[in-house]
Amino acid sequence: MAAPTWVAVPDDSLFGVHNLPYGVFTTGDRPGERRIGVAIGDHVLDAGAVAAGQAGDDMAALLAAPSLNALLAAGRPAWTAVRALLTAWLTDPAHRPAVEPHLLPRPEVTLHLPFEVADYVDFYASEHHATNVGRIFRPDGAALPPNWKHLPIGYHGRSGTVVVSGTPVVRPSGQRRAPGEAVPDFGPTRRLDVEAEIGFVVGGPTAQGSPVPLADAEEHVFGVCLVNDWSARDIQAWEYVPLGPFLGKSFATSVSPWVVPLDALDVARVAPPVRDAALLPYLDDQDGSAPPRGLDIALEVRLRGEVVSRPPFATMYWTYAQMLAHMTVNGASLRAGDLFASGTVSGPERAQRGALIELSWNGEEPLVLADGTRRSFLEDGDEVVITATAPGPDGTRIGFGEVTGRVAAAPTSR
Amino acid sequence: MAAPTWVAVPDDSLFGVHNLPYGVFTTGDRPGERRIGVAIGDHVLDAGAVAAGQAGDDMAALLAAPSLNALLAAGRPAWTAVRALLTAWLTDPAHRPAVEPHLLPRPEVTLHLPFEVADYVDFYASEHHATNVGRIFRPDGAALPPNWKHLPIGYHGRSGTVVVSGTPVVRPSGQRRAPGEAVPDFGPTRRLDVEAEIGFVVGGPTAQGSPVPLADAEEHVFGVCLVNDWSARDIQAWEYVPLGPFLGKSFATSVSPWVVPLDALDVARVAPPVRDAALLPYLDDQDGSAPPRGLDIALEVRLRGEVVSRPPFATMYWTYAQMLAHMTVNGASLRAGDLFASGTVSGPERAQRGALIELSWNGEEPLVLADGTRRSFLEDGDEVVITATAPGPDGTRIGFGEVTGRVAAAPTSR
Repeated sequence: MAAPTWVAVPDDSLFGVHNLPYGVFTTGDRPGERRIGVAIGDHVLDAGAVAAGQAGDDMAALLAAPSLNALLAAGRPAWTAVRALLTAWLTDPAHRPAVEPHLLPRPEVTLHLPFEVADYVDFYASEHHATNVGRIFRPDGAALPPNWKHLPIGYHGRSGTVVVSGTPVVRPSGQRRAPGEAVPDFGPTRRLDVEAEIGFVVGGPTAQGSPVPLADAEEHVFGVCLVNDWSARDIQAWEYVPLGPFLGKSFATSVSPWVVPLDALDVARVAPPVRDAALLPYLDDQDGSAPPRGLDIALEVRLRGEVVSRPPFATMYWTYAQMLAHMTVNGASLRAGDLFASGTVSGPERAQRGALIELSWNGEEPLVLADGTRRSFLEDGDEVVITATAPGPDGTRIGFGEVTGRVAAAPTSR
Repeated sequence: MAAPTWVAVPDDSLFGVHNLPYGVFTTGDRPGERRIGVAIGDHVLDAGAVAAGQAGDDMAALLAAPSLNALLAAGRPAWTAVRALLTAWLTDPAHRPAVEPHLLPRPEVTLHLPFEVADYVDFYASEHHATNVGRIFRPDGAALPPNWKHLPIGYHGRSGTVVVSGTPVVRPSGQRRAPGEAVPDFGPTRRLDVEAEIGFVVGGPTAQGSPVPLADAEEHVFGVCLVNDWSARDIQAWEYVPLGPFLGKSFATSVSPWVVPLDALDVARVAPPVRDAALLPYLDDQDGSAPPRGLDIALEVRLRGEVVSRPPFATMYWTYAQMLAHMTVNGASLRAGDLFASGTVSGPERAQRGALIELSWNGEEPLVLADGTRRSFLEDGDEVVITATAPGPDGTRIGFGEVTGRVAAAPTSR
């Protein structure tokens, strides 16, 4: 059993001392000064302020930065050392006098994008999601594309429009082609959707030409966040052949403000599903030599305050290590701040689907909320909240905070 | 007629005083200090060094930076002012004593990536290229996808693997599925290709939710460079359905070290091809009110020293303004350093095709070089050089320098 913290953490807190997720915050009195914070109970520790007096110069510099990127660039040994130091500060009463003045009540801080996103890659790693989408769009064909079980399919998204939780999502306009029409029209999307995903935050850099093998994944994955990959299904459907999603996704991608260290998820590791197609060696994780890379993260999707889905991340076919190994096997380099997301997390049950297009089966079976509201896709004013938890040590739960967004109407002037 | 320069510029120079492209360089005595340079004749002007004494503080700060990003962020009024200042320095003999000491012979400098790439988007804007690719892969279907004439198809690429001209290109490995096989194997690509493209370098930022209309394109396009979008056709063919190209492109994208200001291309403007499908208003450039946005840039592709293609950029269906308007019509924001490329430039003639897959018609008609060498795709050791020129004022030519790359063998240890 790990040492308890001297901080007054509520018993049911998801931000216990075993979690210690990183974020970036400002306070009302210093709104221009972004600082690295660590969540503990109902407080945020101003990590840079403590480090200025309690850590060596190198570590203090990493924590005094305005984003997590310097820490991400410092690599695994630094991540381990910083986490050990934070744990010591928060568990050893001898540190309390120096640390306690830098605990800020969480409601008093404003949270920002925790890192500058370098490249953003989105995968398609849920077999249930890919199968559902295939059945919806290709009812007479194979549900999965022929490559699906051989590689984790992915594509690059727009890193410049990754925004922090709470940022309003303006309904995008674009080209839509109605069924049976030959030509598209233009206007606000009529099929605005969510995709509940898990994101992996990467440290770097690696050199061009240096793939990251499965065994080295933990050297490059710093932590985990929540992602809502907002999608305009009508824009996407018209544009995506042959070069993939573009404007149907690039208007906004929301991430949670807290990045949970991969180290906090040791207890959450589970075996991934059995692979029913032989994998090429660079993706083969069935030899039992590595730690299991499935993660037992339980997501929850709330729409207008009501839980509409509970996607289980443990059902994902491809692991973060496989995604990273695949993404780099051609020699592509990594940078600090690279973000790769899992794609929509959907489980085998209807109530485990992570996107409205699946939950409403492309609008054929609208969701009916408790107040009678029907939804196939999002309406203006709708708020979506995605949360998640995972098992932690000693029977605790690790929380990921939340990623939220409310839909704002498209500007009328366009 | 513009004022002549006092610099000794060879008569046939493509870097005359009407061009003044921007780059970033180091010198052997200060290898760690990246500086902004401007090409003039056979020299590079150390723009930051001159500006320190000859420009106001704001402008000096833009030119003393280690990349073009600060200048890109400063916006069109600053771009115009800086170009006017550079022109004055190089044409008014009164400036000569202060400027001449900062002219360095071009062979004495090392050129670097001129800007930090924010988001990289690659389009597919040549009708001839898209038609050729369609005919090769879908011989019995329509050559162009149904959306092609309604929108400039594009996708996000990997900005972290954009490299400067001269960087060796290591043959990537990945999954390839041979014709008739059910499952893929793994190994070095057997179908390594080039794509000769023109890139557009963007200033920003713009706010999320603020599309850039056609009329405002020149406020956000700073300049133009050459791009070689190296492609592994076998990896791409297996992976790209349904989410588009990923590892088949992300191993390396080469850009020229010089960014030609859009202002230098006024004489090169030509009308784009007649649009044979009606365009939605946000893409409609047929009303004659705007400056023409076609650009008469003549590209040349050399393989192993021999010209194998002369792609004419003037034949491109979609203009840079249409690409930018489309890319942002969903509200996607821009950042300083965003790069968008045209996609392969191919003209109507065989000798105008900008990719080997078209030149060799997917390997069915290999190129035969003067020394008898046959090529369908690139072999290890092959060097590809892409150059381009455009008409400038007073009968001059504007050069873009070159983007080169030599293919290095895949590491044998994988």
